[in-house]
Amino acid sequence: MSEDRIRYKSLLDKVTDPDAACQHIQNGTNVFISGFTAGYPKLIPQALVRRAKAGERLKINLFAGASTGDAVDGVLAEADLVDWRRPYMSNRIMRQKINQGKIHFKDDHLSRLSAQVRDGNWGKADLAVVEAVAITKKGHLIPTMSVGNTPTYVREAEKIIIEISAEPLDLEGVHDIFIPEDPPYRMPIPIYRASDRIGKPFIDMDPNKVVAILYSREEDSCAVFNEPDTVSQKIAEHILDFVAHEIDHDRMPPSLPWQSGVGDVANAVLNGFIENKFFKTIDLYSEVLQDAVLDLIDLGKVRAASGSAMTLSHKARERFYKELYRYRDKIILRPVEISNAPEVIRRLGVIAINTAIEVDIYGHVNSTHVMGSQMMNGIGGSGDFIRNGGLSFIVTPSTAKGGKISAIVPMVSHVDHSEHSVDVVVTEYGLVDTRPLTPRQVAEQVIKKCAHPDFRDLLWDYYQQAIRTTGGHEPHILSDAFAFHERFMATGDMHEG
Amino acid sequence: MSEDRIRYKSLLDKVTDPDAACQHIQNGTNVFISGFTAGYPKLIPQALVRRAKAGERLKINLFAGASTGDAVDGVLAEADLVDWRRPYMSNRIMRQKINQGKIHFKDDHLSRLSAQVRDGNWGKADLAVVEAVAITKKGHLIPTMSVGNTPTYVREAEKIIIEISAEPLDLEGVHDIFIPEDPPYRMPIPIYRASDRIGKPFIDMDPNKVVAILYSREEDSCAVFNEPDTVSQKIAEHILDFVAHEIDHDRMPPSLPWQSGVGDVANAVLNGFIENKFFKTIDLYSEVLQDAVLDLIDLGKVRAASGSAMTLSHKARERFYKELYRYRDKIILRPVEISNAPEVIRRLGVIAINTAIEVDIYGHVNSTHVMGSQMMNGIGGSGDFIRNGGLSFIVTPSTAKGGKISAIVPMVSHVDHSEHSVDVVVTEYGLVDTRPLTPRQVAEQVIKKCAHPDFRDLLWDYYQQAIRTTGGHEPHILSDAFAFHERFMATGDMHEG
Repeated sequence: MSEDRIRYKSLLDKVTDPDAACQHIQNGTNVFISGFTAGYPKLIPQALVRRAKAGERLKINLFAGASTGDAVDGVLAEADLVDWRRPYMSNRIMRQKINQGKIHFKDDHLSRLSAQVRDGNWGKADLAVVEAVAITKKGHLIPTMSVGNTPTYVREAEKIIIEISAEPLDLEGVHDIFIPEDPPYRMPIPIYRASDRIGKPFIDMDPNKVVAILYSREEDSCAVFNEPDTVSQKIAEHILDFVAHEIDHDRMPPSLPWQSGVGDVANAVLNGFIENKFFKTIDLYSEVLQDAVLDLIDLGKVRAASGSAMTLSHKARERFYKELYRYRDKIILRPVEISNAPEVIRRLGVIAINTAIEVDIYGHVNSTHVMGSQMMNGIGGSGDFIRNGGLSFIVTPSTAKGGKISAIVPMVSHVDHSEHSVDVVVTEYGLVDTRPLTPRQVAEQVIKKCAHPDFRDLLWDYYQQAIRTTGGHEPHILSDAFAFHERFMATGDMHEG
Repeated sequence: MSEDRIRYKSLLDKVTDPDAACQHIQNGTNVFISGFTAGYPKLIPQALVRRAKAGERLKINLFAGASTGDAVDGVLAEADLVDWRRPYMSNRIMRQKINQGKIHFKDDHLSRLSAQVRDGNWGKADLAVVEAVAITKKGHLIPTMSVGNTPTYVREAEKIIIEISAEPLDLEGVHDIFIPEDPPYRMPIPIYRASDRIGKPFIDMDPNKVVAILYSREEDSCAVFNEPDTVSQKIAEHILDFVAHEIDHDRMPPSLPWQSGVGDVANAVLNGFIENKFFKTIDLYSEVLQDAVLDLIDLGKVRAASGSAMTLSHKARERFYKELYRYRDKIILRPVEISNAPEVIRRLGVIAINTAIEVDIYGHVNSTHVMGSQMMNGIGGSGDFIRNGGLSFIVTPSTAKGGKISAIVPMVSHVDHSEHSVDVVVTEYGLVDTRPLTPRQVAEQVIKKCAHPDFRDLLWDYYQQAIRTTGGHEPHILSDAFAFHERFMATGDMHEG
């Protein structure tokens, strides 16, 4: 294995075991890890947990690209090893401790993060722990299934630990690594089409900073996608019909690239292209690529799929690995500051599809905080795409918790995206294009077309009373704006008694 | 006058009087006017008002670059001539009718608007009415004191009416007009420094579309700036001290350009540079340029001042016009889709300073809606700069209405900018850099350092109770989140009885 994987021979001396490598981490160390839903290191977190279990008192500051799954966020949070965590997570235990105030957490637009790290805003980059499939002859890194912030972490870190994964060497050539200069000397990011490659297929690394190398047989935990349900399919249909209609009526060019967030609805939208006759070939300029991308490539329906990471089911991953030689031509994994760059997203006119926890009658969106206070996962890249996309969809099933929660509320309990960034609101019941509407017109349409029928009267009553009592450009009754939420917290149901 | 001003001779035939020209406007006409705080047409609105006063029933849809003052928004709103208005206004009467739902209004990020118009999202561009200092020999337009969306309006309109202003011909050369291609064929906007000129000094126009030309002696109404008061000065000091400190400690490059919003605080910040020894020369990459810019140019402290419009006091305007030959080298007026381009703002790393109506303890910002419902002016370009700036300040005096309103509240009653886009919160009492802080840490600091002492206990009590009862990443008590606002609406004071 070593011959293929560590081609820069003098680094062979650095191969060691996880427990020895782990000694480079001490209490208070700032640990910058690879990982963006996939591609995170697995051995060092386990070694840290062993130390904690042996009674050592130890807290690290953990910075990744985005979420990292149970193998990192889960085990480290459970063992109380994390003081600070940035920027995004989706692990149950970590979420709990963040909401208890036990883990310090700050999430932010993912496009901004690498530059913040280079500016020193996150503190000294003590150590980078990164997963790679190989080290090149010149001592550079071939990442695994994600890029995220890894190029910047590797450049800024004082020390580097590498976990050499057993994933296919054929991943070489999938990545396109480009770190922009920082202001005031930044030049344009030279991406003009989703398919453009502007960088190198490896991450530049100073091999002298490498303090340890580990061989790993661990695998990323896989995504589990449900078969698209009726609700997701309906939402996907609304979106594809709407875009086809806009193109048909010459209100949109026919070849804008697509971005689709993470999860079942996102997958359903992409699945929708499979049968669709209108869309012959599409480009994806997205953040995370999921299973459906492979199906679309197989059908010859994708010209290029650009993202920062791939999150595949177990089955899809096997297929991807087996035929990498073929998929590699179509798939480009970039640093997240490039995949999510406002500059590029706006230039390309990306059609952005992102999910919400709740949307209010005026089109403001809560993507992060359940009932206004409890962090779910984080804002991630949704702000980058929603704000800058040529056309932005916000999608949500009309209800949650078996119908007890309405995803359409009078006022969202937390705002991540304001009405100005949201173009179209979609639920399984319908779709509202807010662009030509005043806020009041948006409210009327969203209540009638997007809300679940069970909640339409309640929403309408609120809206009518707000017009009568308060008036204004966006009529709200502040004392009653969160009545839906308060009812749910009191009774477990947003319906009236 | 005509020789100098209408150099494309065949257009001399089109010179007419306002009442005749105004006949190109009928009920339901979409009227796209020049104007961005300045540079709006004055004669056509007056002619419209005369028709309304003569009893004609007539409503137009009025699209400008931004606000246009009494001479347009004021008189047209008063005469009930406006059905739709986009995208930003600051006129008292128009505001009232918008809040009553009598004028349809939608505001949006200013950087997006021209592209929306080119896409046809605002409806057919029936007519452009634009102010200009001259028509060139080839039939192109030299604008007056603003650019805004005018280049796109002129390009898209079926018919064009021109009001030839008597403002100095020396304005020729101030403007830099560049319309980007639209997705998917857009290329990078090639601005690398605030001083870069990338376009033409005139607006391309098809002279065949011109249906009327009017000679005008009307002037823009002037801005009135108050002498910086103690509060504005304190805020300005906090900002300049902080940036100097960051640069001194090598956490920021020394030469990022500045953007400063509209109003007294903005002027105070720029005035702050006059005496400041740390900042020797600065670049401005802003939206609206105000009086202080001229003072700084006179002192040799400005390398380049880029914006979309100039809003000057009467005195400053006289001075500017008298020595245009000198100021013209430093000042560049661009289309608002360029002055506010996310791509350029992020590339240059602009230091953005924008005002708020209110800020909450977690750093969310309300820029537009008083008590959650009543539109003030609009979001304007604040979102473009706050989100994309290299460092974003949100500034507000700690109180309003003679101390009865706290500008720091538990939860803002409307969110235009979420915590993720805001870096630093500033009042006259102090400043909080939110970048290295969790939301809870932000709350503690904002209450202690930014809130007015009169309101600190109330805010602290809310925050502590929210932690105890609800907990979470951003603890809120939804039933009590707007208690400050409700108290004010009931008693006229946010203090507790």
